[in-house]
Amino acid sequence: MLHTKAYKDLSLHYKSIKNKTLLDLFALDNSRFSNLHLSLEKLVFDFSKNNITEETLTKLIDLAKEQGLAEQIVAMFRGNKINNTESRAVLHTALRANGKPIIVDDCNVSVEIQQVLDQIRQFSDKLHNGNHLGYSNQPITDIVNIGIGGSDLGPVLVSDALKPYCKSKLNIHFISSVDGYQVFDILSHLNPETTLFIIASKTFTTQETMTNAHTVRNWFLEKTNNNLAAIKQHFVAVSTNVKAVSEFGIAVDNMFRFWDFVGGRYSIWSAIGLPVALYIGFENFSKLLSGARAMDEHFANTHDFRQNLPVILALIGIWYVNFYDYSTQVISPYNTRLSRFPAYIQQLEMESNGKSVDKNGEPLEYKTAPVIWGDSGINAQHAYYQLLHQGTGIYPMDIILGLSDKFSNQEHQDILVSNAFAQAEAFMCGKTYAQARSELLFAGSSEATAYNLAKHKVFHGNRPSNMLLLPEISPYYLGMLIALYEHKTFVQGVIWGINSFDQWGVELGKQLAKTILTDINSNQISTHDDSTNNLINLYKRCR
Amino acid sequence: MLHTKAYKDLSLHYKSIKNKTLLDLFALDNSRFSNLHLSLEKLVFDFSKNNITEETLTKLIDLAKEQGLAEQIVAMFRGNKINNTESRAVLHTALRANGKPIIVDDCNVSVEIQQVLDQIRQFSDKLHNGNHLGYSNQPITDIVNIGIGGSDLGPVLVSDALKPYCKSKLNIHFISSVDGYQVFDILSHLNPETTLFIIASKTFTTQETMTNAHTVRNWFLEKTNNNLAAIKQHFVAVSTNVKAVSEFGIAVDNMFRFWDFVGGRYSIWSAIGLPVALYIGFENFSKLLSGARAMDEHFANTHDFRQNLPVILALIGIWYVNFYDYSTQVISPYNTRLSRFPAYIQQLEMESNGKSVDKNGEPLEYKTAPVIWGDSGINAQHAYYQLLHQGTGIYPMDIILGLSDKFSNQEHQDILVSNAFAQAEAFMCGKTYAQARSELLFAGSSEATAYNLAKHKVFHGNRPSNMLLLPEISPYYLGMLIALYEHKTFVQGVIWGINSFDQWGVELGKQLAKTILTDINSNQISTHDDSTNNLINLYKRCR
Repeated sequence: MLHTKAYKDLSLHYKSIKNKTLLDLFALDNSRFSNLHLSLEKLVFDFSKNNITEETLTKLIDLAKEQGLAEQIVAMFRGNKINNTESRAVLHTALRANGKPIIVDDCNVSVEIQQVLDQIRQFSDKLHNGNHLGYSNQPITDIVNIGIGGSDLGPVLVSDALKPYCKSKLNIHFISSVDGYQVFDILSHLNPETTLFIIASKTFTTQETMTNAHTVRNWFLEKTNNNLAAIKQHFVAVSTNVKAVSEFGIAVDNMFRFWDFVGGRYSIWSAIGLPVALYIGFENFSKLLSGARAMDEHFANTHDFRQNLPVILALIGIWYVNFYDYSTQVISPYNTRLSRFPAYIQQLEMESNGKSVDKNGEPLEYKTAPVIWGDSGINAQHAYYQLLHQGTGIYPMDIILGLSDKFSNQEHQDILVSNAFAQAEAFMCGKTYAQARSELLFAGSSEATAYNLAKHKVFHGNRPSNMLLLPEISPYYLGMLIALYEHKTFVQGVIWGINSFDQWGVELGKQLAKTILTDINSNQISTHDDSTNNLINLYKRCR
Repeated sequence: MLHTKAYKDLSLHYKSIKNKTLLDLFALDNSRFSNLHLSLEKLVFDFSKNNITEETLTKLIDLAKEQGLAEQIVAMFRGNKINNTESRAVLHTALRANGKPIIVDDCNVSVEIQQVLDQIRQFSDKLHNGNHLGYSNQPITDIVNIGIGGSDLGPVLVSDALKPYCKSKLNIHFISSVDGYQVFDILSHLNPETTLFIIASKTFTTQETMTNAHTVRNWFLEKTNNNLAAIKQHFVAVSTNVKAVSEFGIAVDNMFRFWDFVGGRYSIWSAIGLPVALYIGFENFSKLLSGARAMDEHFANTHDFRQNLPVILALIGIWYVNFYDYSTQVISPYNTRLSRFPAYIQQLEMESNGKSVDKNGEPLEYKTAPVIWGDSGINAQHAYYQLLHQGTGIYPMDIILGLSDKFSNQEHQDILVSNAFAQAEAFMCGKTYAQARSELLFAGSSEATAYNLAKHKVFHGNRPSNMLLLPEISPYYLGMLIALYEHKTFVQGVIWGINSFDQWGVELGKQLAKTILTDINSNQISTHDDSTNNLINLYKRCR
């Protein structure tokens, strides 16, 4: 990236713009909102409250072009093996391509994708129309998803966000942590006769997931007088490991495949979405896919990057990371149902682009993915927004808001919306000492009090934010929103020269955990560093 | 801070140490764990995996001394009005001082504190022994806390963390967001005859809380054929505003006071803890207070700061923020029941110390509170740890772990513990290119593959972490843990010269939200910036 002409231009441009505030930029352009927002159907992306001008965008787009973005987009959608360290295609987009043929290794992957979608639809129909019953012929009332990482965060996000779309009376639960409290607590509320367990692990070897799966299986057998045959009605698997799944006792018909061209953090559109499809029904799950597909088509076909939402969202992020040196990106969804959206985006962006070597393994000399963090925005106003307004750093924020909500009412919605807009305004405009002081005087403070207290009530402003407005938090627009961030992540990876689709950084911890697990059951340990040795020995003493 | 001798010494010292890795430091000291850990009862704080030496700590302690920490600790515990911008004492410690007299404005605040604790105990007893029933003489089965910020995060954290200590069959719910979906969804599962609502708002004017409270009140009256008298049995308030509470219909006996010397983010020990006291029982709530008191006594009485846990925890944070220029602090609790601990600490630290002026309103020329973020550690391993291991920045982490858990089992607990220890080890030790390459060769890779792939499998290591071990996640040790971070926050505020107990930064957004709420109901709007105007008008069109 550093060697491109565009990067050098941007460095110069940064010097010319860095002292201009957002208010300066608004003063220069009476139509700044019109010029700096984009829409896709009813999704609106207002990026006018950023430290950018049209020139900034032009130069950032030049950078994207020099880094080969257009070619990389084609390569991804076509099924080229752009995950080079694992020699894999990257085809989460194929999962929602509605059967459009995509050939990988001489095989049309869309055929298999449609087969699994059909399998999901059929299973969902059977469950909902009473053709899949528990072993005692009672209908299923509770679904439990056992998975971690991408096998958990997507199903959690979507089932939370779309809870009011759950048409039947199903309850949904998630077992993700290996902390035994979680699984035992959830099991204590369940009836084995009416519960369906979904075990989601690509390899069927994930330590946390398989430990939980076996604990649940033991519980089930204990509660059912060792009814091994009943496992078939109460356990299904999302996996690629037929042998291990069969050995667990799961019927091969109830194994839902996925493929090595789908990474965990991009897998909600695959059979990993099974718990969601069961919970909100297959029709709503299809709408989720349709929304994502609409974003895919926009992303792939909008060759004028200036009009391309994921590209612009990504480029603004690059601008802040690599020129402004901002180290984090806040995600603030205002609708409570999107509270887990920041956690989902954390994995998506940080696991994809939290790398410090390029595709070829050469060390990078610039920063890559920032820390993504956040929580429900309205709650965060009463928690950490203090620092965002008056702290010593600047933390760009994406505000996400569903404009209407048929599950709320007008009074609540007006207050919610007014807060979201007001925070963006406050971050940008701030408040000067003179304003603070005159407000205090107007409110009756003495001159001395106003003089002193106003110093604490200054807001420097010039804090940028993006505003993403959805018409509502519906399956379709949620799909579109998630796909927007997926493609944002991809674009940033291309510009940074990263393989966004591997995750070698998760291996070392797993490897060492296995060693320590063995050490816990051995004699006095002295093979690690002095701290780790002592911690292990301390644990052994109190075990 | 910058003018102190200690700061200048630390700046020089930083230059001498910055190129030493954690492994270098361990190589220099065979007893590094023994030397660099502290205990309080059964809580163990291992800070050996930090980029510090004994000399660093000595100099940091000098800084604390020069900034008057000893005097400030005395001043806080004694009830001096150290919240100078609001002329208030800061006495969350008095809430758990077990009746020890503390005089503020010629009044012994402990007397009132004990009165409210008695009131909580009596109400809790009445609820649990069936002397407080609903209007149709049925026992209360559900408690709903309506509050936001400090009136929400503390009760959420503690009731999550101590859920297995809930002895009765009470359910607990939290309404915090003004998003109407949240309140309507929760109400849809409740029976007005058996539900108790707690409205927690110091002023009884908090916009979100009071909007929710009135929505709930309307629902209650609708469901009960306008039974106004029944409000007394089903609504209680935690507030200081007697008039507004009475007007709402709440019996004055059922109003639980708190005081202006307790900030929202320090209020879980006060009547804001009422939902927790009801949920886990008063006895367990008392143990929470006892644990905090043990930490208070340790903090106030350990005059040798080298032995003082909150001081050391705070100083290590200062070292990373002001010398290493690390901009965030990760909080990684490994027990699922502590999943909301990061959110709690976010508010505590970021709202307290997210300031850029000193106590006297003078601008600070150094960084203050970092971004605090995190989630359940074991889940995060499968989400964002990739970036922490291999990203381009360094993000210090606090790992928090309960060593034993009578609500789990040995198998799960061993895996949980081994993962927590392994991650700290991995962050510190990393993996070299040579190691990665030889592992690949050993596993059967070709020379060419090993040569290339190893580049992606390098971990630079030298990533610091603190390890905080609790014997278990019990009321007592949870109290101790929260108080540890409270005092950490206080110490950092003292060193930065900040008033940690005001929060002027939350006001501007509230002020602007009120204006926009009015504008939403007015004609075409043009009084804001072009973006805000257009957003408001856009919302009005789709309303």
